[in-house]
Amino acid sequence: MTEKPLRVALIGTGFMGKCHALAWNAVAPVFGDVPRPELALLCDVNAELAGRRAAEFGFTRSSDDWRTAVSASDIDVVSITTPNQFHPEMAIAALEAGKHIWCEKPMAPAFADAEKMTEAARASGRVAALGYNYIQNPMIRLVARLIGEDAVGRITHLRVEMDEDFMADGAAPFDWKHASSSGYGALDDFGVHAFSLLKILGFEPRSVAALMTKPYPDRLTGDGSAREVETHDVASMLLRFDDGVGGAILLNRSAWGRKGRIFIQIFGTRGTIVYDQERLNEVQVYSADGPGYAQGFRTILAGPAHPPYDKFIPAPGHGLGFNELKIIECRELMRAIAGEPAHLMGFDAGLGIERIVHAAARSHEHGGWVEIV
Amino acid sequence: MTEKPLRVALIGTGFMGKCHALAWNAVAPVFGDVPRPELALLCDVNAELAGRRAAEFGFTRSSDDWRTAVSASDIDVVSITTPNQFHPEMAIAALEAGKHIWCEKPMAPAFADAEKMTEAARASGRVAALGYNYIQNPMIRLVARLIGEDAVGRITHLRVEMDEDFMADGAAPFDWKHASSSGYGALDDFGVHAFSLLKILGFEPRSVAALMTKPYPDRLTGDGSAREVETHDVASMLLRFDDGVGGAILLNRSAWGRKGRIFIQIFGTRGTIVYDQERLNEVQVYSADGPGYAQGFRTILAGPAHPPYDKFIPAPGHGLGFNELKIIECRELMRAIAGEPAHLMGFDAGLGIERIVHAAARSHEHGGWVEIV
Amino acid sequence: MTEKPLRVALIGTGFMGKCHALAWNAVAPVFGDVPRPELALLCDVNAELAGRRAAEFGFTRSSDDWRTAVSASDIDVVSITTPNQFHPEMAIAALEAGKHIWCEKPMAPAFADAEKMTEAARASGRVAALGYNYIQNPMIRLVARLIGEDAVGRITHLRVEMDEDFMADGAAPFDWKHASSSGYGALDDFGVHAFSLLKILGFEPRSVAALMTKPYPDRLTGDGSAREVETHDVASMLLRFDDGVGGAILLNRSAWGRKGRIFIQIFGTRGTIVYDQERLNEVQVYSADGPGYAQGFRTILAGPAHPPYDKFIPAPGHGLGFNELKIIECRELMRAIAGEPAHLMGFDAGLGIERIVHAAARSHEHGGWVEIV
Amino acid sequence: MTEKPLRVALIGTGFMGKCHALAWNAVAPVFGDVPRPELALLCDVNAELAGRRAAEFGFTRSSDDWRTAVSASDIDVVSITTPNQFHPEMAIAALEAGKHIWCEKPMAPAFADAEKMTEAARASGRVAALGYNYIQNPMIRLVARLIGEDAVGRITHLRVEMDEDFMADGAAPFDWKHASSSGYGALDDFGVHAFSLLKILGFEPRSVAALMTKPYPDRLTGDGSAREVETHDVASMLLRFDDGVGGAILLNRSAWGRKGRIFIQIFGTRGTIVYDQERLNEVQVYSADGPGYAQGFRTILAGPAHPPYDKFIPAPGHGLGFNELKIIECRELMRAIAGEPAHLMGFDAGLGIERIVHAAARSHEHGGWVEIV
Repeated sequence: MTEKPLRVALIGTGFMGKCHALAWNAVAPVFGDVPRPELALLCDVNAELAGRRAAEFGFTRSSDDWRTAVSASDIDVVSITTPNQFHPEMAIAALEAGKHIWCEKPMAPAFADAEKMTEAARASGRVAALGYNYIQNPMIRLVARLIGEDAVGRITHLRVEMDEDFMADGAAPFDWKHASSSGYGALDDFGVHAFSLLKILGFEPRSVAALMTKPYPDRLTGDGSAREVETHDVASMLLRFDDGVGGAILLNRSAWGRKGRIFIQIFGTRGTIVYDQERLNEVQVYSADGPGYAQGFRTILAGPAHPPYDKFIPAPGHGLGFNELKIIECRELMRAIAGEPAHLMGFDAGLGIERIVHAAARSHEHGGWVEIV
Repeated sequence: MTEKPLRVALIGTGFMGKCHALAWNAVAPVFGDVPRPELALLCDVNAELAGRRAAEFGFTRSSDDWRTAVSASDIDVVSITTPNQFHPEMAIAALEAGKHIWCEKPMAPAFADAEKMTEAARASGRVAALGYNYIQNPMIRLVARLIGEDAVGRITHLRVEMDEDFMADGAAPFDWKHASSSGYGALDDFGVHAFSLLKILGFEPRSVAALMTKPYPDRLTGDGSAREVETHDVASMLLRFDDGVGGAILLNRSAWGRKGRIFIQIFGTRGTIVYDQERLNEVQVYSADGPGYAQGFRTILAGPAHPPYDKFIPAPGHGLGFNELKIIECRELMRAIAGEPAHLMGFDAGLGIERIVHAAARSHEHGGWVEIV
Repeated sequence: MTEKPLRVALIGTGFMGKCHALAWNAVAPVFGDVPRPELALLCDVNAELAGRRAAEFGFTRSSDDWRTAVSASDIDVVSITTPNQFHPEMAIAALEAGKHIWCEKPMAPAFADAEKMTEAARASGRVAALGYNYIQNPMIRLVARLIGEDAVGRITHLRVEMDEDFMADGAAPFDWKHASSSGYGALDDFGVHAFSLLKILGFEPRSVAALMTKPYPDRLTGDGSAREVETHDVASMLLRFDDGVGGAILLNRSAWGRKGRIFIQIFGTRGTIVYDQERLNEVQVYSADGPGYAQGFRTILAGPAHPPYDKFIPAPGHGLGFNELKIIECRELMRAIAGEPAHLMGFDAGLGIERIVHAAARSHEHGGWVEIV
Repeated sequence: MTEKPLRVALIGTGFMGKCHALAWNAVAPVFGDVPRPELALLCDVNAELAGRRAAEFGFTRSSDDWRTAVSASDIDVVSITTPNQFHPEMAIAALEAGKHIWCEKPMAPAFADAEKMTEAARASGRVAALGYNYIQNPMIRLVARLIGEDAVGRITHLRVEMDEDFMADGAAPFDWKHASSSGYGALDDFGVHAFSLLKILGFEPRSVAALMTKPYPDRLTGDGSAREVETHDVASMLLRFDDGVGGAILLNRSAWGRKGRIFIQIFGTRGTIVYDQERLNEVQVYSADGPGYAQGFRTILAGPAHPPYDKFIPAPGHGLGFNELKIIECRELMRAIAGEPAHLMGFDAGLGIERIVHAAARSHEHGGWVEIV
């Protein structure tokens, strides 16, 4: 692979900033076939925090100005982990400056901005990857493999549920995620993960009928007054795919007790595949093979037979974690930068996801079916 | 309760016929507070079969003419377990003859017939109950109790999935359930169970958007030619309830590996309830109570604390079966006949279910949302 | 099968008495190939109760003297469901009177009594069956079938856990089950079920090392004084089988949260079988077959492919209950009485179980390994 | 904490060598409160491999002589990840040279060697930690917390099962782990993890009765001849603890389908705790609190409420992996080196584990109960 180490800048030090930092630190020891990246620059609007985290994360220098990451000549790739509304400006600037970028999902609250980002990526000729890390789970690759091997036959129906409870507490105060400036709510805040999983498995919805609801119509603000919640914590969709296949996607970020559930059910003419992100080291498969009295859902535990699990642990059933999916994503990004085929969600694919999001939002507003174009 | 034993006629000796027979035999020994019913007459179009089953099931006499059950003066109640298209004629005749009836679900393929049945029931003043046995599960009663006790707060979102695989084999030949004369497919064939569970828990959908699909557009007939499948094995619905609550119902009778799944998720402002009919002796409840580090879904195992489980087994965790739900239903029917309050789905409630079914079918045909009226 | 209906007497109207009664009522309607038994006589020491239950259960007459069941000339078979200490006298008397018997487990608190019962059974030439109903579960038969078909290869190790919590509450008062007159405690009170499952699957332990413990050394009596608990709620055993196979049996009747757990793990040279009685309609099987990336434990749901489930319900995944295992046992008893091969635990086999029980008790007392002879 | 970065040498580049390397790389970015360690020296008997891995893992230099790690003056702490038989020499040499050490489990095949290691550790005054990483799981800490808070009352009974299938294939050739020079087999090869979990939870067995068995008495060697297997893949133990508490530990490394199962059941006077390492982000707790109809096992999903999960991911339910337990262990090691209280298994505790191992082996050999002293 690339001979010269990649020189990395990271913008943001929150949840995803740290997650990127861990991945950049671990990718070489885990995979062993890439030079250790040079962690060159860490940016955070808070200068003190930027400096402190740079020391912790192993970055050489820090800055309180993200533009440094764009203008510096010794940076090859920029990790963008700031809130969504900042993605367009940062991503476009970095691409125009000739940097590869690794930008967290979703692309941007406004579809027009996502389009501009995609155009910038195309024009730049650089790698522009999105942080859809769930697709990197070896067990999701197993699902793709099983489908590809025709283990469950032709797919006839699909369901994806994605549920968490970080908005389930009605007593929690009004938050920036409750303002329409943040987007639609569950639909784009985290529903995009569901769409990314469908896409990586080869399923493209053609039209959508959506319903979005608000468990809590208003919430208290800091001054004790009630403010109308503008986003929807629950989004439910019916989907039409090609060849008469239908499906449903059901999203709820006010689902008490669900912490990171992404429940996928793929029904085929010879079997069924089930996956639950809360048990991310397992896949369930039913095959209508063999004698009926012995048929059942098999629970497959992740192991070295499911690459690249083997790069982490040589023994099966020991379990990968969420952060390790990011390390895999980082390795795929490096592959793409080296010009190799990579299992990665680029801006083009990401724009396709944004199209579903906005079509669903239009369906909710106007009622009935909306084409995804 | 009633002093005089009920005199019972049963029409039909198939899956549900036997299930009714078992219930009529067991209801007195299990509950101990009702006189043993007199099993007077068993009807089946096949005279020899009728005679044989009468001996097995303990019925005194048999007939190959269902009208005998209606005309006989020594019959108080008639169990109707024939295919759906025969329900209207039989039910109406029995009601007009002054019999109480216990009719299997759904009411009838045509809505107009269901209406006539309901009118006949009202006019007769007799008990007209439908065989929605899943609502009799002590664990469904527990769900109702938990909701009633506000254990999960105000309900904000609902999902019900119902999946089996009896139509999953594409190589199976064209069957009467594939002809439109049998109804719509998954929607009324078994989806009505899902609606009955919503209804018993107090949830009334106001409008619906539906999508129905066919995993197998055609199937082989006996002569080897292909025939178009007219019913839909998959039906997916979005539902609007009062007060801004939304939900989804997803039905699939071609779902390989699912044998009797009815998966219910009820999300509230303080918790979540989950139930799976394939593990019918369990309910899962999450309550946002106590310290966060100790919160989780509780798996409650059925036991004597969940009446009327105690009438069957004095020890917890030993498990009731599907057939035993019918025994409970039989006891509720007897309660209703005795003029006592009963936990039972009558024809009025059943007609409400038919309304949802037909609204969903119209939505599928015309696209978009349809009011349920 | 037998042309003439069996004439039945039942002694006892408690937990197991009712369970027998339900089985005698249901066996003909469920199986359809036996004449309906004549429920002739119900005995309970409480005359009023005997009369009331006779009406409920469908018995023709009742008595407060169990000897009536033995002396009556119109009785073919006697169900014995009284506390264990009464089994020897009743069973021997019934056998000597030429009755077949269906006696609840375990045989008797004292081994010498169990021996006498077995001798009486042999001398009588009658069917003497024990109520080991767990072996009747279609899923246990599936386990036997899978072992017989070599699905998991040669068996190399066995584990059985049996846990309930009916003794878990330390505040509950001293009970007759805490007195040594009732036996050893978990070991014979319910551990015999574990042994019956091993036996039916073909595993005969040769020696045992046991440890029994008391979670609550004393309990309050009615007068408020503490009394020493003489039985052991917990019994743990290591077992040696032939051919160098080892195993463990772990019993606990003070296991909070366990309601009817019998957890069986059977390890073989090509796979593993797992069963949990709390989910009695499921069996899990792992086979080291096919590509490694697709191997996993299969969860098989009970269905018509697992006879005699098909006699109860023609659809899979709908679930049998605990009481229905007794109906199957009843059918096997009738098979044995008719001189046909039956899947049943007779007194000879039951005596083998008592041998394990008493060897384990000796091991606990003296320490170390004890041969089972 | 320590101002000066720790200077690290790592001996070994296999399964555990890589695991240590990943931990040393990640500990500072994850925890943020320690200086990044200096990865100074990597040793492997294969010089080329040592050099290659040093580049991947981020070590400054490499050596094919482990003694370099001991003799170098710029090394503070030595990670020892070689096969067990090399532990004593390496550990003692490093301690005598004034290094802290982080040595993989178990200590050594011979008890005398483990004693010498412990003496060397005491004499050195340095930190000598063992790689019992399972105790670092936040969910194991939750178990300890729950016990400490009396959530399940006084503990009355304990069970631990540990099962994997890496020796389950009888066709696999004779391996060094089948020779007695490697130890006893399952008992010390991986059973020590089970003992470490008991110990960290505060349970000290006083005597043991053990049975060890061999699923495959012999295996083929490279030249096609059969060789007797000298170690035991299965080890089953009964244990006596203080205060009349009993327990069982059951180990099987030939358990097809089990990949990393460590199944712990802790029974108390008010509840039960269950943990399964194959689902290492979950703990199940039953509390006999509240109304009986609502009691059940709660499945608690790991999250920020379970420190130090929060250092890895701020969102619950996203899942930690096996490798991340090692990062936690590394942080605890650094804490100990800094003189702070640490959650860590030192050589003294490790020697206690070896005592159980050897007592169990003696019990197996001689039969019956053996005191653990």
